[in-house]
Order: sequence, then C-alpha cells, then structure tokens
Amino acid sequence: MANISNVAILGASGYTGAELVRLIATHPFMRITALTGERKAGMAMADVFPALRHLDLPVLTTIDDLNFSDIDLVFCALPHGLSQAIVKTLPKSVKVVDLGADFRLRDPKAYEKWYNRPHDAPELQPEAVYGLTEFYRDEIAKARLVAGTGCNAATVQFALRPLISAGVIDLDAIICDLKNGVSGAGRSLKENMLYAERSQDVMAYSYSGTHRHLGEFDQEFSLLAGRDVRIVFTPHLVPANRGILATCYLRGDADQVHAALVDAYKDEPFIVVLPNGKMPAMSDVQASNFCHIGVAGDRVSGRVVVVSTLDNLCKGSSGQAVQNANLMLGHPETTGLMLVPVFP
Amino acid sequence: MANISNVAILGASGYTGAELVRLIATHPFMRITALTGERKAGMAMADVFPALRHLDLPVLTTIDDLNFSDIDLVFCALPHGLSQAIVKTLPKSVKVVDLGADFRLRDPKAYEKWYNRPHDAPELQPEAVYGLTEFYRDEIAKARLVAGTGCNAATVQFALRPLISAGVIDLDAIICDLKNGVSGAGRSLKENMLYAERSQDVMAYSYSGTHRHLGEFDQEFSLLAGRDVRIVFTPHLVPANRGILATCYLRGDADQVHAALVDAYKDEPFIVVLPNGKMPAMSDVQASNFCHIGVAGDRVSGRVVVVSTLDNLCKGSSGQAVQNANLMLGHPETTGLMLVPVFP
Amino acid sequence: MANISNVAILGASGYTGAELVRLIATHPFMRITALTGERKAGMAMADVFPALRHLDLPVLTTIDDLNFSDIDLVFCALPHGLSQAIVKTLPKSVKVVDLGADFRLRDPKAYEKWYNRPHDAPELQPEAVYGLTEFYRDEIAKARLVAGTGCNAATVQFALRPLISAGVIDLDAIICDLKNGVSGAGRSLKENMLYAERSQDVMAYSYSGTHRHLGEFDQEFSLLAGRDVRIVFTPHLVPANRGILATCYLRGDADQVHAALVDAYKDEPFIVVLPNGKMPAMSDVQASNFCHIGVAGDRVSGRVVVVSTLDNLCKGSSGQAVQNANLMLGHPETTGLMLVPVFP
Amino acid sequence: MANISNVAILGASGYTGAELVRLIATHPFMRITALTGERKAGMAMADVFPALRHLDLPVLTTIDDLNFSDIDLVFCALPHGLSQAIVKTLPKSVKVVDLGADFRLRDPKAYEKWYNRPHDAPELQPEAVYGLTEFYRDEIAKARLVAGTGCNAATVQFALRPLISAGVIDLDAIICDLKNGVSGAGRSLKENMLYAERSQDVMAYSYSGTHRHLGEFDQEFSLLAGRDVRIVFTPHLVPANRGILATCYLRGDADQVHAALVDAYKDEPFIVVLPNGKMPAMSDVQASNFCHIGVAGDRVSGRVVVVSTLDNLCKGSSGQAVQNANLMLGHPETTGLMLVPVFP
Repeated sequence: MANISNVAILGASGYTGAELVRLIATHPFMRITALTGERKAGMAMADVFPALRHLDLPVLTTIDDLNFSDIDLVFCALPHGLSQAIVKTLPKSVKVVDLGADFRLRDPKAYEKWYNRPHDAPELQPEAVYGLTEFYRDEIAKARLVAGTGCNAATVQFALRPLISAGVIDLDAIICDLKNGVSGAGRSLKENMLYAERSQDVMAYSYSGTHRHLGEFDQEFSLLAGRDVRIVFTPHLVPANRGILATCYLRGDADQVHAALVDAYKDEPFIVVLPNGKMPAMSDVQASNFCHIGVAGDRVSGRVVVVSTLDNLCKGSSGQAVQNANLMLGHPETTGLMLVPVFP
Repeated sequence: MANISNVAILGASGYTGAELVRLIATHPFMRITALTGERKAGMAMADVFPALRHLDLPVLTTIDDLNFSDIDLVFCALPHGLSQAIVKTLPKSVKVVDLGADFRLRDPKAYEKWYNRPHDAPELQPEAVYGLTEFYRDEIAKARLVAGTGCNAATVQFALRPLISAGVIDLDAIICDLKNGVSGAGRSLKENMLYAERSQDVMAYSYSGTHRHLGEFDQEFSLLAGRDVRIVFTPHLVPANRGILATCYLRGDADQVHAALVDAYKDEPFIVVLPNGKMPAMSDVQASNFCHIGVAGDRVSGRVVVVSTLDNLCKGSSGQAVQNANLMLGHPETTGLMLVPVFP
Repeated sequence: MANISNVAILGASGYTGAELVRLIATHPFMRITALTGERKAGMAMADVFPALRHLDLPVLTTIDDLNFSDIDLVFCALPHGLSQAIVKTLPKSVKVVDLGADFRLRDPKAYEKWYNRPHDAPELQPEAVYGLTEFYRDEIAKARLVAGTGCNAATVQFALRPLISAGVIDLDAIICDLKNGVSGAGRSLKENMLYAERSQDVMAYSYSGTHRHLGEFDQEFSLLAGRDVRIVFTPHLVPANRGILATCYLRGDADQVHAALVDAYKDEPFIVVLPNGKMPAMSDVQASNFCHIGVAGDRVSGRVVVVSTLDNLCKGSSGQAVQNANLMLGHPETTGLMLVPVFP
Repeated sequence: MANISNVAILGASGYTGAELVRLIATHPFMRITALTGERKAGMAMADVFPALRHLDLPVLTTIDDLNFSDIDLVFCALPHGLSQAIVKTLPKSVKVVDLGADFRLRDPKAYEKWYNRPHDAPELQPEAVYGLTEFYRDEIAKARLVAGTGCNAATVQFALRPLISAGVIDLDAIICDLKNGVSGAGRSLKENMLYAERSQDVMAYSYSGTHRHLGEFDQEFSLLAGRDVRIVFTPHLVPANRGILATCYLRGDADQVHAALVDAYKDEPFIVVLPNGKMPAMSDVQASNFCHIGVAGDRVSGRVVVVSTLDNLCKGSSGQAVQNANLMLGHPETTGLMLVPVFP
C-alpha cells in the first residue's frame, strides 16, 4: 500500500479549489491538511461550498498562517500573478502544482507580452514543467514545480499535437472555434457573468488573437513543429456550467488525421478517440477527467474538422493537477480520477 | 389607412406557427382568419400554446376544411415536403409565404440532391422568389410565392453577401461555425431534443458538409460570385431556446470587410453593423427581427472574423415571413416588426 | 390623437430600466427624453444594453444633470432608499412612478421595521398611491406619485385579493410558495447570482418571514380583510431569467375560489383566469404584461391551490409602471402593453 | 477482501440505468455482467450513452436472452408495470432491487387505486421490502426483493418521518411543495419535456392530489403515525437536469423539529441536517447520494418550514438502489457511494 501524501490547497474558495477537494476527498493516497482563502480565512469550507458539508476539512486560513513543514505537495489555485510570489518563498522540499498561468510560458519575454507585466520569479521558469500530462509525463514525474495548462490550451492541444507531430495538417490554416462553459471565468464578480446575462446567450470573447492561452499555443505548437505556428482562435461563452468543446477547422485528410489521433492515444486512459465520422458532445465528459475527440471529413476536399471536448474544471484544471500530483508523488497516475462522467 | 389583409397560417401548432401568431396579433394591417394543424385540428390555440390564451383566435382546422376564397395570403409553416403538394392546389389569387424548404432551391436537381426526393411541383420553382428580404426586396413585392430562407442560411448570408459582392474576401477559404438555439429543431419529438439531453451540452450536428442549408449557400453565393463557391459549415446545438450566432472565419482585411458591411446595410432598418472591433451576443436580438453583425481582425495578418446573430424563429423565419408578406400585401415593410429585443 | 408625453427614466442601467425602454420604444404616446445612470453616466445605452442598439436614445447622464422642466413623468428605477431622497426634490409639476420600495408602505413605522431605517420623506408617504393598477385604478389616474408594488407582492395579490374580498378562504391558513426567476435580483454583483451558482439550482431565500414584500402583504391584506392577516411566504430562486410563479395553499372550496377570481377579473385585459382545474406555467407570460391564474382543488377536502404567474420585469415592475403612467397621463391604459408573450 | 458480486441491469437505456452504470463502474465489489434494453438490444452502451464510452461494458440484450444462472442481483430499471411480470419469473436465487413502482405499495387495493390496474404478482407484494434504506435497513439486508421508493417519496420522507415519529408536528396540516429536475420524467418522448418547453419554465404537474407517490406517503406516514395521514403535495418541474427540493410547510416548533431531525440522522452517513435556520440548495447534492435537510421557523408563531433536497437519479433512485444492494450482498453500505457532490 502506498504512503499517504499530505497536500495543501492554496486558493480553495474558488471553483478549481472546490474541484480539487471533490477529487481528493475520495483519493485513497492523499489527505488534505490545509486550505487557504485570503478573503474567506476563518470560514469553514461547508459555508463556502455547502456541497462539501459532509467532509471533515480544515478551516480556511491565510497563506501566511500555513506551516509547510508537514506538507508534501501544494496545489496553487491562486489568481494569476500571485502564484509566482508565493512559490518562490516555499521550502524546496515542497512540491508544487500550480493551476494558474504563472509558469506556463518558459520565456520571460513571452510571459511579459501576454500578461502585461514582468515575471516575479524568472529564476523558477526554467524549472517549471508544462503540465500537459499525456505529453510531459516523464518530466512531470521528476519535477518539483509543474505548471498546469490553460483549460482551453489543453482542449486544443489534445486535438492538434498528434497532427502536428505526424505532419498531417497544414500548419498555416488552423482555425479553432471554442465553446466554453461559464465556470472557466471563476467565481469573481463580473456583470457579464451574472445568470441573467449568460443564460440563453452565446458570445465571443477575447477575440482578435488576444486570448492569453495563445501564448501557450505559440510556445507548444512552434516547439513541436520546429517552426513558428500561429493559430486563429476564438473562444465563446455558452450557457453551461462546465465544459469546453473545441471545433478545429483544418486542412488535411480525414483518414490520416483520425489515424494519427488513434495512434497517439491508443494507450491513454483518459483520452478517447471516437470512430471516424463521429463527433463528441460536451456533456459526454461532464465532471470527469476524460477528453473525447472526434474527426469528420468535409464535402470540400482536403478539409477536416476535429472536435475535442473536456471538463474545464476537471481534465482542464483540477483533474489534470491531481493526475500530475499522482506522478510527482509516486502514486499510480489514474488514482482517484476514474470517476465516470455525470449524464444527464 | 391601409386595408386589412386576411391571412391564414398552415401548420400553426409548431414554433414558427406560434411565432407568426405572436407577431401578427399586434400587426395593425393583418387579421388571422384561419389556423391549421393536422394532428391538433379541433383544438383551441390556447390549449396548444397557453401563452396565446388572451387572444381571440380561430380554432385549429385541417387544411382540407379551409375556405381560401376570403384569404389574401397564406403562411405555410408545414413540414418540408408537404408545402409543395399544398401550394400547387391553392387558387392563384392567394399569395403564399412558405416558411419551409420546398421552394428555396431553384434547380430541381439541387432540390433532389439535398432533399433526397424529386420535387412535386417543379413547375412552381421558377416562380418562387427567394425570401431574403434585404436582397430580393423588389422581386418579393411583386411575387405570388415567396420561399422563406433557412434560418442558418439567413444568418450566414447577412454576414457574407456584401463581402462576396464587394470582392473583399477569399472565396475559397470561408469557414462558418454556427451556434444554434434548440427551437430551430421544431416541436417534433426526438430523444436528443429532450431538456435533460440538451441542457449543459454543446454538440456539432449535420457536420461534414451534409446540412441542407448548404444547398442555399451553394446557390446564392455562386450566383453572387459568378463562379462556384463552397463554404465549410458546422452547426452546433447550444442550450438556448432562440438564436443563431454564426462565427465566420475569412481571409481578408478587417477594415475593408467592415466598410463593405456598413455600406451594404446603412439604410436597412433591421440589420445593425457594430463598430469595427465589437462583437454581438446572441441575446442582443432575442425575440426580435434584428440581425447584429460584428467584425474583428486577427493578430494573424489577413485573417478576419465576422460574427452575425439573429433570432431563428423571428428574423430567421416568422419575422422574415411577415416582412415579406408586408411587401407582398403593400404594407410598409417594417409594420409589426419593430418589437425591441427582450433582454434579459 | 393623444399628445406625446415626455418621460425620463432614472436608473436606466438596471434591468427594470432596460425593460422600461423596451416597452416605451414602441409606445405611440410616450417619448424618452432623458436616461440616468450614476455609475454609467456618459455611456450610450447601446453600450450598456446592446439589445437597444437600433434605438435613438439619449446618452446616460447623472440625475444632477437633468432638466425636469420639459419632463411630464419620471420613472424611478433606483435602488431602494434613493428614490425618497430624489422624489422630494422634484418639481411638483412632474409626475412620478417609483418602481422601488420607498413608497409602498403607508405607515412610517412599517417602513422602518421592514427596511431598517427611518423614511427620508415621510411627508410624501400619504400622497403615494399603491400601484397595483387593477385595484387602485381610480386613485392612480389622479395621483402625482405612484409606488410600484413589489414583484412578488403583485403576483400573490393577484391570486389572493379577490378571495379575501369574497371571504372564501381561511385567513389564518395562507401559505405562499414562490419560484422566482433570477432577474428579480437585479444587475448588482453578488456571488450567488453568478451563472455557475444559479444554473441547475433551486434554493429558498429570505425565508422565516423576513422578506420585505411581507410588509406589503400585511398592509394590503389586513386593510382588505379589516383585521390582521399574516401569511406564510417562502420565495425560491429558480434557474430562469424572468418570471414568478406563486403556488398558494389555501383552505376553501375550489369552485367558490375559482368563481371569485373569474368574477373579479372578467373585465381585466391583463389578468387571465384559466378554466377550473388548469394550471398556468411560468413561460406562458414571458416578456408580457399578462398574469395567468389557475385553481385546483385537492383530494384533501377543503384544500385548494391557486397558482399565479407573471413576468417580474414586466407586469411585476416595468409593465405595471407603464400601465400606471398611461392612467396618470391620460392615455388608454393598455397602450404599448399588448405585446404577446414570447414562447418558447 | 469482499467477494465480487455479479449484477445485471434490466432497462439500462434509461437515465436510472445509466446512473447505475456510473455508480457501479467504480464500485470495488460489483461487476456488471449483463445489460438489457428491449428497443436498443444489440447496441453498445457507448452508442446509447457516449459518456460511458471508456468503460468495457456488455452489449445491450433483451431480457429473454439473459442467463440468470451466474447473476447474484438484478437491478430492474423498467417501466412501471413491467417489473412485476419479470420478477415473478426470476429464479429465487437471484436478488432483486426494483427501481420502479411495482412493489412499493403493500396493499393490492392501494396499488390498483394508484396505478389503475390490478397487480400481476400480488403473491410477491408481502415479500417486497420498502427500500428507504435509513428506515428499513435490517429488513433490506435480509430481503430477496427490495422495492425502491419514488424519488419524491424519498425526499419528503427524509424530511417528515422523524417528525411524525417524534410527534412534533400537526399531522393534519402538512403541505409539501416540490421543485423537480427534469430527468425524473425519464428519457421517454413527450412534447412538454423538450428543451424549448422546459427551459425558462416552472409549472405544477400531477396536482390536486393525483400524483402516484401519494400512495407511498399514505402508506408510510399512516403506518408511522398509527392513524390515517393525508398530506397536500404539489410537484413542479424546474429547469434543471437533476435534483428535487421539497419545501414542507408544517405546524410545530422549529427547535423541536430541528432536534428531532438531528437526533434521527446523527449516525447516518448520507443524511446531513444543517444548523437550525440554514436552508440547503438543490445544487449542493448534485450527482451524489447525499440528502441535505434544513429547518427554519417563521414569524408566524407555530409555523415551521423544513426543506429537504437530494439528487433524484442518485439518492432518489440509483444511488438508493446500490445502497440497498450493498446491504443485500453483504458489502459495507456506503461502498461506491461516497462520491462528493459536483459543484458547480
């Protein structure tokens, strides 16, 4: 039997924090020993998230009040910009999975470009491993600091990385149209996130090539292709709590594209490639760590559409984080993550 | 003051039928003198649509029981295939606005290709005028038979026709990703239209270039361009009652594209082009006859995104039908249609 | 032809403000000459509510910048507490319809009890007429200041007032369970009004007899009954944008109850009593000024359930306000308000 | 380590069938060896429920094709009326958990009254144990045939049974107002279950004391009280996939009521009683086997409101079924059921 690992969650009062608690609560080899929430310090998690009321959880504290000496791994679910300041102060004995954006970009200039500020801990950037488990598994297992990917970035990369590697698509004609559930915006208060504004609505946001996850695409796809790759990417908010569905319009051959995906994921426990010609639906992966991918050709010759879908809070964020933590702590990678999607 | 026109609605028990009643009930120059619904004949509309309970409406009858002698215009909101059989039996004195697909394609071979059956009234096809009011206004005013456009077809054409006419986009690189409210599927019983299946879900449907509205795009865009045009088009169901939002990925210059749209629609009462760089939301046009269009360039040079949105039941179907009927009956085109969108 | 009345809307950047604009934009006898929004002063309404983009509306100003000399009537859609301070400074020539809570309670002590503060303009309280049009029609027509009712208060009063007047129910056994759409909470930023919190959820709020609309029930029902009446009342938030559905559990005879409602509303244009045994649905009145009421007996003898439903933003607030303004300005009461409910 | 039990699910193509698969797929001591679906026999579960695609499941068969010899326990998720015909043909060695209504009522006359047909297997009715685990635990552990409760019936009984037993409420003044997610209606095709009909709507159904779950209330509450008890009960459909929230209006003292609930459930793993004065929300228990209960007094003396909420597909049906199966098969009662609620 494995040892029990003690973990802390920094920023536990947001949605990804709650999702971490949900997953770890039934994880046989992890124990939550601390939870922080700056504005809600002193509160019981049952009062912040009544859905967690039956669990016996630590009271929320501030980060300053935390004792890191008996913590094996910290999940940072903090607002962008805060993680870098915190992580550099942590004892080197503590492993870190950061769910935010602070360590996703390896190049300080790229970070500054996309986040409009210099990085506070550039010395840590080279150490951080990009947390897309299926493609950085070995490095993650050895890492002290893992940078969770953007949820959009994960969805699109699952669709495209094997195609870029296999050389089966035109790198200059990649268009990704995303439909995003609302929880990706987090629990912060914005007028356009009110129920009455989002219900019955669809709208594009961060269009014109301004979305920060483009920094990850530029970095990862260019690295993979050995040349600059720039995709066109428009995310849209849809009235759903969880889920991202990415529709990728590509130039290539549907059979070759499908074969490349099947081959890449044939041994992956969480990535499901559908039969050629079938497309996944966003609700097929709800509240789970699975990603479903479908391929369909078009009547216009040489065109192919790949659709990829996952739960932004789980596989796109907290599930990915637990998957990475499993590797870092020496537990089997899928531990605690085989929960079946909830439907309907 | 205008004369009052007597109108009948065939197929009044579906959603487009109910929407016609909603619009005509407060129309100053139209009076509903007959409503048909084959399966619900004998029922009061208040029992089919309780939202219409306060109105004094005719009881539903069968089409066979209708007396066409005192009817000026008939709205056909019948299932595809049925209209052609009915319309050819109508007295020539009765004007017809067909909301279905039967007379949208002028070429009998194209009809047979997309609808998998020969046309029952090919002699009427040349007479039918394509009902996209803003582009066929003069012909519609003189027509006896007008073919309402597909709701997706309308949404995308509002975005693209001026761009094709102005020659400002690459005709071989048009990709349209649609997000469609559920009412477009009508009131017929299908498992995947149940609330529990559609809520919290997004999924592509009729992908791979199989959607029937492609027949309209092929016909209209090729005619406009003077050469064959084939677009890539993927519709998706989103959890909303009404609305279509089309995201069109194009090759062109954003300023030129925006200027072409502004120019084309500067005198149109229902088509609103947003300032360059702003994008519309689906809920901005809910329950109205307006179409909002936005343009945004991309960081990838030469790429531009146009988003177009309208209410599928209103501007995409029943509102368009009333707009066309106004022209055919000699009423001012906007009569009864200036209802402000409902938000939230 | 009637004269055109000039109206201003104070607090036009909230949902009831937008709804007023929606209704008045197609009103033949009212013209919007000023719109205020303290935090959004200087903005165009098209930027605050893109759904209103096609309208030619005044830019938002502050109240201080308003010139009241050419304004016939002011709609106050201001936060509770602010109206009383504003209204007492207005010229006496300006008529006022207040959509807030400031003038609903006639008794300063009752106001202080329910709103936890003394009234700022107690001298105006006796002048204010309670704005439940169907029951205060004559006073409203002569009033300078009309106090719009609470939206819950309107829904329940439409169900119960005729029953109390007719003496057909037990006054000591009235239980009202409400299901409320989310827009009733307004556009202010609260964590539990975020889409991800309200979607898929139902929860009771302001329970235990603490909801402020109870002040209105106490006042109105006691006045009507000639004795103290205290109802049990629990509102619940449901995932819908608009609408209130009140389920009232009563002791009485279903036939007598139904007859009393039919008799009370037989000449009312906006109140629809369904056939005995039929119940209305919330979506039957969406975006309209109608209220539907149903009655059903129970297998337990002497028990009867009355269900009443209306759109909180329209009949429950802005539609009621326009109805009252019509009376105050000498226009026909139903002008601009016969819009048919939107379904689906 | 426990033995592995082989289980079959009859009627696996409906929502409760899918929920059983979801729960059992991660259950350490149960193995699904057969799945039936009469209309979908021959199909893979991945095609009926794509959310289950990653699982290695048996293909759907007809019941006739089933070999019961190696099956320890059968879950019957069949339409009402069909279970009784099937169950009486099963070998006595097979344990049965019926999720339908066929064995809930012990009295053949009561069954005939509520279901409008004589029972096909009245000889089995005395043997069937009512499946409300927390109150029939010992009998269930020894039973061969357990009758799952109605989902509404479970929700209300969790709120009221301890209060009836403790004698702290007036038995002649019980009113229960329910808000029900849509999945309770199952996957069958009905016009009023379409997305466009249910979205944005709330409506009462099976009112007037006609809902079949009243048969269970009559049976259970009368047995408990030692006299006839008849409650008033109105269920409403709300736009949510899962969940029932019951608001119970009672005469009694809030402190006594709260104390009775706390006392009754202090050792129950799945029933959570909130602090006095706090109310649960429907989304607090989503996709879980938990039931949350809250109590609040009212300003009207002697009135108390109890709110109870659970997930109709899980604790209200399939979760309850697995809980009972655990007892019947000798596994720890909570095995496979400690999944944390999904929020948001």
